[in-house]
Amino acid sequence: MIDLLRAKRDRGSLSTPQIDWMIDAYTRGYVGDEQMAAMAMAILLNGMTRSEVRDLTLAMIASGETMNFDGLGKTTVDKHSTGGVGDKITLPLMPLVASFGVAVPQLSGRGLGHTGGTLDKLESIRGWRADLTNDEMMAQLRDVGGVICAAGAGLAPADKKLYALRDITGTVEAIPLIASSIMSKKIAEGTKALVLDVKFGSGAFMQDIARSRELAQAMVDLGNDAGVRTSALLTDMERPLGLTIGNANEVRESLEVLAGGGPADVVELTLALASEMLALAGQPDADVAGALTSGRAMDTWRRFIVAQGGDPDAALPVAQESHTVYAASSGVLLEQLALPFGIAAWRLGAGRARATDQVVHAAGIDLHLKAGDAVTEGQPLFTLFADDASRFERALDALDGAYAVGPAASFVPRGPLVAERLA
Amino acid sequence: MIDLLRAKRDRGSLSTPQIDWMIDAYTRGYVGDEQMAAMAMAILLNGMTRSEVRDLTLAMIASGETMNFDGLGKTTVDKHSTGGVGDKITLPLMPLVASFGVAVPQLSGRGLGHTGGTLDKLESIRGWRADLTNDEMMAQLRDVGGVICAAGAGLAPADKKLYALRDITGTVEAIPLIASSIMSKKIAEGTKALVLDVKFGSGAFMQDIARSRELAQAMVDLGNDAGVRTSALLTDMERPLGLTIGNANEVRESLEVLAGGGPADVVELTLALASEMLALAGQPDADVAGALTSGRAMDTWRRFIVAQGGDPDAALPVAQESHTVYAASSGVLLEQLALPFGIAAWRLGAGRARATDQVVHAAGIDLHLKAGDAVTEGQPLFTLFADDASRFERALDALDGAYAVGPAASFVPRGPLVAERLA
Repeated sequence: MIDLLRAKRDRGSLSTPQIDWMIDAYTRGYVGDEQMAAMAMAILLNGMTRSEVRDLTLAMIASGETMNFDGLGKTTVDKHSTGGVGDKITLPLMPLVASFGVAVPQLSGRGLGHTGGTLDKLESIRGWRADLTNDEMMAQLRDVGGVICAAGAGLAPADKKLYALRDITGTVEAIPLIASSIMSKKIAEGTKALVLDVKFGSGAFMQDIARSRELAQAMVDLGNDAGVRTSALLTDMERPLGLTIGNANEVRESLEVLAGGGPADVVELTLALASEMLALAGQPDADVAGALTSGRAMDTWRRFIVAQGGDPDAALPVAQESHTVYAASSGVLLEQLALPFGIAAWRLGAGRARATDQVVHAAGIDLHLKAGDAVTEGQPLFTLFADDASRFERALDALDGAYAVGPAASFVPRGPLVAERLA
Repeated sequence: MIDLLRAKRDRGSLSTPQIDWMIDAYTRGYVGDEQMAAMAMAILLNGMTRSEVRDLTLAMIASGETMNFDGLGKTTVDKHSTGGVGDKITLPLMPLVASFGVAVPQLSGRGLGHTGGTLDKLESIRGWRADLTNDEMMAQLRDVGGVICAAGAGLAPADKKLYALRDITGTVEAIPLIASSIMSKKIAEGTKALVLDVKFGSGAFMQDIARSRELAQAMVDLGNDAGVRTSALLTDMERPLGLTIGNANEVRESLEVLAGGGPADVVELTLALASEMLALAGQPDADVAGALTSGRAMDTWRRFIVAQGGDPDAALPVAQESHTVYAASSGVLLEQLALPFGIAAWRLGAGRARATDQVVHAAGIDLHLKAGDAVTEGQPLFTLFADDASRFERALDALDGAYAVGPAASFVPRGPLVAERLA
């Protein structure tokens, strides 16, 4: 391991057998955390070649079990988002794409920090459960066409160990390590095609579009090198997606989209990702907008919720306390920054600080306006929801400077929501 | 700690309170090895400013006890070498300098790998012991003027912990970490003046003179910033120093120097370092060569050996087995590389691979010629000594390509032994 550390430290490349050995030895504990931490820092600062990143990803896949959907008789296609504020796209997207007869095995996670988790949002629905056996998953993919469930602990255990180490050693931001972490799980999950939604802007993991592009290209290369048809959209996360940030309220907004309505940005991104997924699955001309207005996607949603034990007609939870902020002057809503709104929702109870925390499903923020909208003095700007009114103060602290009302001439529009496509 | 890791990773500087906190927390175990390993790699790749290196050194000194020789009524001056092959200079140097009435508190170490340790060499002398109490040390500095002994475990414990971590994480070579490691111990030891012998060439820790100069300057700055008058000589370690590599044979050669003889290079470096030490101690015109020929330095040597329990007249140990290599042709000895000769001596038993290994005091190599000397076919080039003849084969393997005989016109002389002086 010292030889490998010296090689990477001195800007050398590691060979396939070296990387295989390192990941296997780290998984088994022969290579300790202190050596792997030094390696992670060397990788962050000196980078990895495309073939090193591929080898690292394949070694992490080989550290655990892999899934296989070949027996299904359907094309499989999946989506992964690098995470954002108000990003509920998986909820309308999975049933929409599955309604075209392809299989969508969407293994998802829970939220941590200011970005929400898809499983947390769905658990707002009474009875819905995230844990499925492999047999249940396979049956549901056959019958319903789509599943959203928790990834099994057996996929890429080396990645789990390395991720926890990166978290405490300042090495989360290394692009080769992010790319191999995400892609090892997605490739181990057995999908044949994958669309990546890589965010940039204030609420994204990588705020800078150039770094997001670098990450997206690394993951697209990795997927295609490993035989998974992979493409990526670079999408803007400067401002929250849609008008809801939380859990239950994001389900409500997703239902609006599935019913043919909903905020324009959520609809736009859902349709863009659905078209991209279906194109990779061999249906480039699918009428994705029609499947929303016709109710076909909603039918798949209801069957998906029922299949996982949920009641699609149950009322969503409602918060005990709310606090609305009103405009102090008239003009235009000039700004609405994703990161502080994400932090505020987190502080209201919608997110968790530690993996063992519970989320409050009814907590969150409803936005009444989007940036660029006209505002009249005294008009409600947004409403905070929590089960405990004492949470409002710290949430409002986070929002200090996160929004502003001013003259229309001062408003700076953002570029397109879907900025670029990489394949 | 994650904030500090991010700062160093992103090429920022750490403040004095941050470094103090980090070293204290690491010493107490609040900061774990995995975080410190990532920090060591970030420091290796991104460097540290002069004030960061000073803060790190002072924090490591503060992690343990410090010594104080103020009550002695003598100027204290010490020497530190970065280690080489055949480097026995401390043995004649300490008594030579002490014979001028200054105190030389030479805290030394044991050998590890291909470079020997001063304490191992001296333990060839029957009865001599390296462990002294602080009271014994003080009494001997007063009475004899010099001491060579093991550093107490209480000096800079943070350095000991960090050094062990660097050893397994590929971060030994970071100049800020080398400089602070060496200087924290030397400053904690309480000397008022210090001369550094920083080696370059094949047998040195840093083979490249530019890197050696960088290390030397960092240490000189550190010493002077901490109130220790510090200078450095950059000296050539491309070829072994003198004609002996081992332990008992290096003592024998040191006695030749103390008796006014010995190989020219050992004498030259001993005199250069002695002059430099005495200049820092306020005696720039000391007749150091005269102290060797007059026997004054030898008198101090004998009193030093006796004070530490040794018998200066006891016969040195002799190896059971020897193996001499003869010249296969006539010409000039073109090369004699320090590193392979150091490795060969180590394999003969003169050095240790692990800190717990025992050295064989009689093992080692006697050189019969120096590079540049004329050679006649059949003339002995060098002799290997070991207690077990089976060790010769692996030692000879190490020497493959380490020496060559050829036409005088092919001989490339090296530059001066003492290449530069830094202060």
